[in-house]
Amino acid sequence: MIMDNLILYRDGSPELKDPILIEGLPGVGNVGKLAAEHMIELLGAKKFISVYSKHFPPQVLVETDGLVRLVSNDYYYIKNCGDDKKTDIIFLVGDYQGLTPEGQYDLSYKTLEICKEFNVKRVYTLGGYGQGKMIDYPRVLGAATSQELIDEMTEAGVVFSQGEPGSGIVGASGLLLGLGKIESIEGVCLMGETSGYFVDPKSAKAVLTIIQKILNVELDLSKLEDKADQMEQFTAKLQELEKKVETSGEELRYIG
Amino acid sequence: MIMDNLILYRDGSPELKDPILIEGLPGVGNVGKLAAEHMIELLGAKKFISVYSKHFPPQVLVETDGLVRLVSNDYYYIKNCGDDKKTDIIFLVGDYQGLTPEGQYDLSYKTLEICKEFNVKRVYTLGGYGQGKMIDYPRVLGAATSQELIDEMTEAGVVFSQGEPGSGIVGASGLLLGLGKIESIEGVCLMGETSGYFVDPKSAKAVLTIIQKILNVELDLSKLEDKADQMEQFTAKLQELEKKVETSGEELRYIG
Amino acid sequence: MIMDNLILYRDGSPELKDPILIEGLPGVGNVGKLAAEHMIELLGAKKFISVYSKHFPPQVLVETDGLVRLVSNDYYYIKNCGDDKKTDIIFLVGDYQGLTPEGQYDLSYKTLEICKEFNVKRVYTLGGYGQGKMIDYPRVLGAATSQELIDEMTEAGVVFSQGEPGSGIVGASGLLLGLGKIESIEGVCLMGETSGYFVDPKSAKAVLTIIQKILNVELDLSKLEDKADQMEQFTAKLQELEKKVETSGEELRYIG
Amino acid sequence: MIMDNLILYRDGSPELKDPILIEGLPGVGNVGKLAAEHMIELLGAKKFISVYSKHFPPQVLVETDGLVRLVSNDYYYIKNCGDDKKTDIIFLVGDYQGLTPEGQYDLSYKTLEICKEFNVKRVYTLGGYGQGKMIDYPRVLGAATSQELIDEMTEAGVVFSQGEPGSGIVGASGLLLGLGKIESIEGVCLMGETSGYFVDPKSAKAVLTIIQKILNVELDLSKLEDKADQMEQFTAKLQELEKKVETSGEELRYIG
Repeated sequence: MIMDNLILYRDGSPELKDPILIEGLPGVGNVGKLAAEHMIELLGAKKFISVYSKHFPPQVLVETDGLVRLVSNDYYYIKNCGDDKKTDIIFLVGDYQGLTPEGQYDLSYKTLEICKEFNVKRVYTLGGYGQGKMIDYPRVLGAATSQELIDEMTEAGVVFSQGEPGSGIVGASGLLLGLGKIESIEGVCLMGETSGYFVDPKSAKAVLTIIQKILNVELDLSKLEDKADQMEQFTAKLQELEKKVETSGEELRYIG
Repeated sequence: MIMDNLILYRDGSPELKDPILIEGLPGVGNVGKLAAEHMIELLGAKKFISVYSKHFPPQVLVETDGLVRLVSNDYYYIKNCGDDKKTDIIFLVGDYQGLTPEGQYDLSYKTLEICKEFNVKRVYTLGGYGQGKMIDYPRVLGAATSQELIDEMTEAGVVFSQGEPGSGIVGASGLLLGLGKIESIEGVCLMGETSGYFVDPKSAKAVLTIIQKILNVELDLSKLEDKADQMEQFTAKLQELEKKVETSGEELRYIG
Repeated sequence: MIMDNLILYRDGSPELKDPILIEGLPGVGNVGKLAAEHMIELLGAKKFISVYSKHFPPQVLVETDGLVRLVSNDYYYIKNCGDDKKTDIIFLVGDYQGLTPEGQYDLSYKTLEICKEFNVKRVYTLGGYGQGKMIDYPRVLGAATSQELIDEMTEAGVVFSQGEPGSGIVGASGLLLGLGKIESIEGVCLMGETSGYFVDPKSAKAVLTIIQKILNVELDLSKLEDKADQMEQFTAKLQELEKKVETSGEELRYIG
Repeated sequence: MIMDNLILYRDGSPELKDPILIEGLPGVGNVGKLAAEHMIELLGAKKFISVYSKHFPPQVLVETDGLVRLVSNDYYYIKNCGDDKKTDIIFLVGDYQGLTPEGQYDLSYKTLEICKEFNVKRVYTLGGYGQGKMIDYPRVLGAATSQELIDEMTEAGVVFSQGEPGSGIVGASGLLLGLGKIESIEGVCLMGETSGYFVDPKSAKAVLTIIQKILNVELDLSKLEDKADQMEQFTAKLQELEKKVETSGEELRYIG
């Protein structure tokens, strides 16, 4: 017997009322992953499906205590969120995206099956939009499956900017919308601007600020702010160092 | 359930009378794509099949209004073309060719199935023939599945030149002929000469000029001419710039 | 008919009593392979399953007498090992690991099927841990599927060090634990420190020294010591040569 | 419907008496391909199976008359060869080997199925053995599935040299032996020494000289000799040219 391309392990079967799905897999600046994992932690969402797959690297991760864990994608859920306590959410996070185009399609197709199983009508995919330069005030760019959704998101502060992203959206954040559109599941991709050079908590915070408005969910973003500050100090030091190297290079040139 | 390698979405089932198929997927100089898409626009052909596939990149394109669209290959049809209003045409165009050899074979095999379904007896595949240098007056080179077809095409101005293309024809433009020959569907590949460095509307125009003769279809090629002129100006500027850089380099050498 | 992804050839069906499995496939410094093959030779274990696979290179090896042998993975067994003559062992060794992620998963999944068939409850995977520098006294690092196993291994001298290996364990040595954990087969990976630049018998010896303690099996490691000495002399010469080249370079610089 | 990985087209079903199979697919110096195709031409063997496959490039070749031909592997047969008119031969030649390990295994597995269908008991695989330098008098090296075969081949002049080829035999020439051994079809690989830099008719001639002895088949090798002479003149000119370039370089250095 050959291993299936995807193996699902389920831990319980929660009853959810028209949940939304929020995807935050690794990607540019790990913005989506940071944002979604932060929400899971803050809201206390519970893992209920793990997906193992040939489409991931053949790898275990070793936790700090020496325990191994096979790389996976994982679904979490939380019920009764938001001001009105009426919003149920499914999260999709994980260690990797599918390694190949085939893997990407298989995994997103499976996610949409799970969406149908739980009657998900709307998908939010979170990601970063790499600008190739440091961004002081990251905008949150959007792309969506319908004009109504674009209008709704625009009101929440999402920027729909002509020609951004020019090359389309690659990976789960794009596929869930593209395949979802065909399957009549609406979706929007929220992309926090980022340099693309570092893991970017500031961009993740920008995305979550928008998500707060859209979902009417209060989130304590202070931890993310702390991470963003640390990252800022780290990159500032790096830039300083770079300058020094340059300056000393110039001095050498004068000496030479 | 795993996603199928190819997913077809059909919009209606047109009644076509012995249609021909014209393929113009992305390739060298995008000559075939430009030519086929131009015909679709001019003739007002209607999309009736979309193919989504694991063999394409896992990507959505974002239209200027912010709407996403999963990458696809698409079939269009038009009835009663040509002087005698008797020619039905199916077009195959799209965002990508299959990413792998397996994908290429699967997609072309599916195209031939569609050909059989609609009783297509002849396939025209359009492409570019990269010469690695600027081409002032692009010839249209040919390759075909039978001597009769070669004779017919030669009369229409297609050049069958010994040793061109020496390395054969790679991708859908080749496979549709090769697999078609085995399945008794005749076909010819029309390749407009092109540098291969740029998208080449002039080469696409050359191909369409031949197609006009073959199909007895009048096509307004003025838009393509405009695009060709713009491209010409663009490449001319580029060459000028290159010369300047070279000249200044020479000057520097004299100074040094 | 298409060839199966994996083809198993069995030579007899040994009756084993709750055997353990020891995996030693090629990897960093070939530490695991050296260690497992040495045990097979010393204990006189007998080959009983050969696996041929599309996931291996399309290659035969030519033995010194001119005979060809298709590349494979092979299972050996030995009964009644250890002081109490009560330990049965299955070994997994071979020429290659799976070439692709899919191949890695398929092969490790098959190994776990064989584990279930023979009622294997615990798996030891042997490997090297590349440190990128020469290691005089190689530690044996560990990672495992449960805290109890970590405690047991720690007592035997295995080092569980926070942040080592930071990037996880890739390949069969990791997958057998990760997939095994899901299938309720416990496992531990024993990684001998090694430079990663050479085949490393000294590191293999360090791993076997630990294995001796764990399994209460006496192993004559003198042959491995001889190999280690030869390797040491070889690398010492190499380093000397390098120094000479450097020195002469410096001399040249003085001259220049 | 998805295209099968391999599509066979058969043209008749010859009655063959315990034929041998001779494989000569593209490889190092194209030695095997040259040798097998030369035999097919000289003996007037007839094509009876064509294999098309997703494992080949998605490509048609264009013959000099402008006709396209899908790339393929092809089987030819000839009856009643040799002095005693009792040897039936199947040849396997083609445009490409499988592009991936999976493709290589699938194709060789299919070849062995065809061997069983026609009761082939022995396979000769022909290839080149790249030495990385010009070879004046190419030996024909061998590797085989049994000691008896090695003895028989040694008598015919095949050289079984310890450590050659050290890295094994990759591709169809190796796999047919390796898989064949498992399926009880004996086989020998005959490798003509070659530089590996050029197509090498001299090496192909060396291989056919051995084949003549083994099969008791008279072959007119004069055409191959002519090709070898042309190649020799070509490489001689190349070497001369290289020397000139070097010399002029030295002169320049003196001047400088």
